[in-house]
Amino acid sequence: MPSEELSQDALARLAAVIESRKPGQGGDPSASYVARLLHKGPDAFLKKIGEEATEVVMAAKDASAGGDASKIVNEVADLWFHTMIALAHYNLSPADVIAELARREGTSGIEEKALRKLGAREADEARG
Amino acid sequence: MPSEELSQDALARLAAVIESRKPGQGGDPSASYVARLLHKGPDAFLKKIGEEATEVVMAAKDASAGGDASKIVNEVADLWFHTMIALAHYNLSPADVIAELARREGTSGIEEKALRKLGAREADEARG
Amino acid sequence: MPSEELSQDALARLAAVIESRKPGQGGDPSASYVARLLHKGPDAFLKKIGEEATEVVMAAKDASAGGDASKIVNEVADLWFHTMIALAHYNLSPADVIAELARREGTSGIEEKALRKLGAREADEARG
Amino acid sequence: MPSEELSQDALARLAAVIESRKPGQGGDPSASYVARLLHKGPDAFLKKIGEEATEVVMAAKDASAGGDASKIVNEVADLWFHTMIALAHYNLSPADVIAELARREGTSGIEEKALRKLGAREADEARG
Repeated sequence: MPSEELSQDALARLAAVIESRKPGQGGDPSASYVARLLHKGPDAFLKKIGEEATEVVMAAKDASAGGDASKIVNEVADLWFHTMIALAHYNLSPADVIAELARREGTSGIEEKALRKLGAREADEARG
Repeated sequence: MPSEELSQDALARLAAVIESRKPGQGGDPSASYVARLLHKGPDAFLKKIGEEATEVVMAAKDASAGGDASKIVNEVADLWFHTMIALAHYNLSPADVIAELARREGTSGIEEKALRKLGAREADEARG
Repeated sequence: MPSEELSQDALARLAAVIESRKPGQGGDPSASYVARLLHKGPDAFLKKIGEEATEVVMAAKDASAGGDASKIVNEVADLWFHTMIALAHYNLSPADVIAELARREGTSGIEEKALRKLGAREADEARG
Repeated sequence: MPSEELSQDALARLAAVIESRKPGQGGDPSASYVARLLHKGPDAFLKKIGEEATEVVMAAKDASAGGDASKIVNEVADLWFHTMIALAHYNLSPADVIAELARREGTSGIEEKALRKLGAREADEARG
């Protein structure tokens, strides 16, 4: 596992690479997959998000059935990568996402909001 | 936007929080949403990955139609958060994912492999 | 397995039930799940399509790992049901979908178009 | 729109075509897209289900933003088509799915069960 510093550098570098592939930044659709997705527009990379999410689910099910868990890392990397392309298109960055996660972690917002919902649903199913 | 250092700390801290919510680490399903998902098992959090991926797509389409792009950040945060729960279940971490992204960025592996596929498909469609 | 005639009646009847739950047709969100989804609007039922598609995938992976295949029928039923709610919202019907499938089956359009794409992709991967 | 009878015939015919493309039924992966997906195995067609579900969602969002609703019919047809390939792989049929929908419609099972869940969740969110 890489040092934290190295990891963070990698994420920021990857975002910078994606940014440089935007049509307005000189990205060349004939030479770069990212440039091509950004050139084709949202449907192209959003479709990939749905596809890659499904691949994460399948890799996880395989691991649960005794398969190689490391495949999950590859599929999550694919999924995060394509969400980063989407973020770039809308002038957003992974740093924005991490800041949002930090904000929630600080306030325990995710835990509380999501737990409330799940609790209510399960209580209801138990009643039914 | 937070400094890079702060961001990375947030991601590592969140992974540590999720780790502490595992059943074997004393996570309490009645008090924590994460502990509850981990306790219920893979189908519970994998289903959320499919749902949250769809919400990212919807938020992006809304932004493309003139809506508020900041909703995308919230939905991507939800998606990354639930993939982190899945990673924890399989004893993997976001650092593993970032290392994989770094590895690809170094070799330009994502670009090349994916571009090859897309190029072939488009050439074919043009022929069709 | 029901007779073909019975099956078709069921699909048409279900579409009529969904139609009757539209807000403008007197559907009552407090008494009907379908009326509530239609009342809440597209994001509510579209999110379910992403979720149910993931559940189909998970049920199929379970069956491949030796589990009960009949769960797949339940999940596909959930998925088709929620796509029928979406169709109703846009004043479309399952008969439109079946007509489109019939049209393709007649022309072998699905086979030919999709095969062309897949063939090109695989040829490319073999080259890579 | 075709008559009900024609529609049902189309669905049954399409299932029969898919069945004939199974490896054990003489399906030729080099000549048929369906035979190829069935030959490659579950991950190939399950991934398509995730992708096509996302395309349904995007077509619906486009229609909501003023676009052409007929695109939804094409995307739902793609989604149903790929679920039919999955059904065939597990020796199930669309008639099984329709029978399940008929069963629920008869008992109002979908409505009641799903409404209970949604009601509890919304009540909770209103409280929150």
